[in-house]
Amino acid sequence: MSAKKRERARPSGSEARPPASPYTPRELARSIDQTLLKPHATEADVIRLCKGAIKYHFHSVCVHPYFIPLCKAILSGYDTKVTTVIGFPLGMSMKNIKVYEAMQAVLYGAQELDTVLNIGAVKSGNWDFVEKEIREVIDASSTALHKVIIETCYLTGEEKRSAAEVAVACGAKFVKTSTGFGGRGATVADVKLLKEVVQDRAEVKASGGIRTLAQAVRFLGAGATRIGTSAGVEIMQEALPQ
Amino acid sequence: MSAKKRERARPSGSEARPPASPYTPRELARSIDQTLLKPHATEADVIRLCKGAIKYHFHSVCVHPYFIPLCKAILSGYDTKVTTVIGFPLGMSMKNIKVYEAMQAVLYGAQELDTVLNIGAVKSGNWDFVEKEIREVIDASSTALHKVIIETCYLTGEEKRSAAEVAVACGAKFVKTSTGFGGRGATVADVKLLKEVVQDRAEVKASGGIRTLAQAVRFLGAGATRIGTSAGVEIMQEALPQ
Repeated sequence: MSAKKRERARPSGSEARPPASPYTPRELARSIDQTLLKPHATEADVIRLCKGAIKYHFHSVCVHPYFIPLCKAILSGYDTKVTTVIGFPLGMSMKNIKVYEAMQAVLYGAQELDTVLNIGAVKSGNWDFVEKEIREVIDASSTALHKVIIETCYLTGEEKRSAAEVAVACGAKFVKTSTGFGGRGATVADVKLLKEVVQDRAEVKASGGIRTLAQAVRFLGAGATRIGTSAGVEIMQEALPQ
Repeated sequence: MSAKKRERARPSGSEARPPASPYTPRELARSIDQTLLKPHATEADVIRLCKGAIKYHFHSVCVHPYFIPLCKAILSGYDTKVTTVIGFPLGMSMKNIKVYEAMQAVLYGAQELDTVLNIGAVKSGNWDFVEKEIREVIDASSTALHKVIIETCYLTGEEKRSAAEVAVACGAKFVKTSTGFGGRGATVADVKLLKEVVQDRAEVKASGGIRTLAQAVRFLGAGATRIGTSAGVEIMQEALPQ
């Protein structure tokens, strides 16, 4: 088999780097949390999401808690995990509710939890509460991998730094820029800032408004190692040789 | 608002009807859930909200669960209630979480609960689940007054009707048009449709995008008896003689 044929035979493990990307399609796919968080998504939409995720070997699908059991059933045996969101998208439910939501999400099969910190508490300067809440959420569901959504669009630079520090101190493996429901999504500047704060103690997930290969590459280049996007399939189609 | 209700509401408030309104300022104020659901609202913002609500005798303040204790403390002894939101704004958390959230909200002092139905389940046609969830939420927190948020912007006419029927069947006292976080807020057509469905079995709360006296009057005229707005103070300033 020629090298070219071998490449074609490995749809998502392809190692050919597309012209626009320093990452192989496989590397790209494994950085993507393929996301569907529209409230009016149907079961049919979620099934389609999972099939796309299986086809391209995405790292995970990111869905609302309601859809965890469906995704778990479909993805069982595949290398795509189930990510869900906690306190999403406003982060303003009570602490106990987030803790219980995280526990139940893991119980039902979520392997990664993207938790929105309490934005109002951050803006009120109640850092003790912010930290206590994140710690309790993580401790109550410690078998999962935790990402803390900072929702950078509402925070000052200083608040972003403090929020990232708190998340890392509580055991989060990722700080994540955005819910996709705030005033704006990820920016390269925010990814750089968060990476500078967390260094090697955690990773950065960029999310919100990422829809093209060029954007994904830009965020990965800025220090993100995970991309949250509802356009994973389109990005892979751009990345893979046609 | 019925003529009878207008009669009853009159004695304790200002009785001069502003030119643009068939309702007295008192009637208007008692129809308003003064709302602050921005995720980046601070404690100072919430305190300001409560002071305005006390001043104008709003029916309630509508805040995130996190702020229930603060509002309860400030509003104790006044005629303004505490409303909170459950499963807000996407309605896609798990059923148990909504039930627990509702229980805890009442425990902490919320008197009215505005619960978002599971929009994804509606769009997937899982009406048994939608009904079961609303019933469990209401049963678990039955001392509160319940409003069910239909989020009309995502539903077809038929789905709006079915959702309103289900809400009433489960014991909701209000059907509410919108979260304010969807594609659009209340419309007069939606208020009329919901009122036509629920008749005298429930009331209609219009919310999302209502910022002026003229808008409030239009929605009340269309059959709403409650207005959710973050501009209650501005509306009252328009309504009251200067």
